[in-house]
Amino acid sequence: MEEKLAVCLMSGGMDSTTLAYLARHQGYRIIGLHLNYGQRTENKELRCARRIADLVGAIEFIEISLDYLTRFGGSSLTDRSIAVEEYDPAREAMPNTYVPFRNANLLSIATSLAEARGASAIFIGAQAQDYSGYPDCRAAFIEAFQQVITLGTRDGSGIRLIAPFLDMKKADILRIGLTLGVPYQETWSCYKDSELACGRCGSCHFRTAAFAEVGIRDPIFYEGE
Amino acid sequence: MEEKLAVCLMSGGMDSTTLAYLARHQGYRIIGLHLNYGQRTENKELRCARRIADLVGAIEFIEISLDYLTRFGGSSLTDRSIAVEEYDPAREAMPNTYVPFRNANLLSIATSLAEARGASAIFIGAQAQDYSGYPDCRAAFIEAFQQVITLGTRDGSGIRLIAPFLDMKKADILRIGLTLGVPYQETWSCYKDSELACGRCGSCHFRTAAFAEVGIRDPIFYEGE
Repeated sequence: MEEKLAVCLMSGGMDSTTLAYLARHQGYRIIGLHLNYGQRTENKELRCARRIADLVGAIEFIEISLDYLTRFGGSSLTDRSIAVEEYDPAREAMPNTYVPFRNANLLSIATSLAEARGASAIFIGAQAQDYSGYPDCRAAFIEAFQQVITLGTRDGSGIRLIAPFLDMKKADILRIGLTLGVPYQETWSCYKDSELACGRCGSCHFRTAAFAEVGIRDPIFYEGE
Repeated sequence: MEEKLAVCLMSGGMDSTTLAYLARHQGYRIIGLHLNYGQRTENKELRCARRIADLVGAIEFIEISLDYLTRFGGSSLTDRSIAVEEYDPAREAMPNTYVPFRNANLLSIATSLAEARGASAIFIGAQAQDYSGYPDCRAAFIEAFQQVITLGTRDGSGIRLIAPFLDMKKADILRIGLTLGVPYQETWSCYKDSELACGRCGSCHFRTAAFAEVGIRDPIFYEGE
């Protein structure tokens, strides 16, 4: 039987965790890749990603620090002098949590790793619906990056970028995860670095809305609960 | 008068140095960006790039270490257990100096920096002729990456990837540089980390051939001279 090998980008959040379980379900052996780009919640995210990699049976877990994205600045996720915005459905501008061109950096690293190890796929849990303001979460961006991978890796590498959640609602991702036994109690979504999730930032907003829509209790705890 | 700002990738080699001088000639203020990916000759390259940034009048010089490319391995440039191949015109396979998907990593970082600083251009001295085996030096790769930049940065960022040397011969790049006063004595091309350039690796081969074709003396010194 052919051994399929995949690099799974694992942030420690709901979407990438669900996707790692889906990759395993599809028969891939998993190399977990966690990128630290100086985001406020990195300690929590790393702990979660490492634990999830264990649980999903990753054959390798690699963490890489991209402190240069912090040095460039310009995002409330990496610059502590900018407050994280609360979710505002009326806002049309880009959220200040946007990290310039972040996903291209993540995908370039994932592709270098996939090519070096002979992996045939890269799984990324990018999802456009909740991140309509982030240009690097658009389906067109992901398609263009596939083209860059095809042209920029050695001929015949055949590396495929797999991003099945791009146009899905978070509630539907959650429904898939529940059928796969994803341990959501081990995931972290909040943009802030409090002990408990804040429940008010954009990321908490979409997470709690997804659990509410599916009609089950979120296994993590929120401030004020 | 409009202030034009550009990120210039500066390796310390001939092509990127010539291009930084061309960017200045075109009226750009320059942010120099030097990436260390664990290549054998990094100390020399960094010293050269820093000095050239000074000479060309860069308003900022940023050096970033990408040690993960070393960790992934697979290239003689970053893995000291693999010997650097000497130039062989009959070789058809990819040279073992290829670092998987390196240029996408460099361009992603350059784009994040350009977007964070509001620069309108990224200059990369990629050149396909001497690197026909490197997939990430092909014109089609650079064009695809421009598409990724357009789609993956905020709308209206207008960042242009400028790679005028893609289809030029190194001798022609040298001719341009000579008209711009490029200080080639400050550049480093050799893949090996000896005191003097080896004169035999692929990079030395193309450099010495370019100087020979133009008919001037290379101001750097080679082993055995």
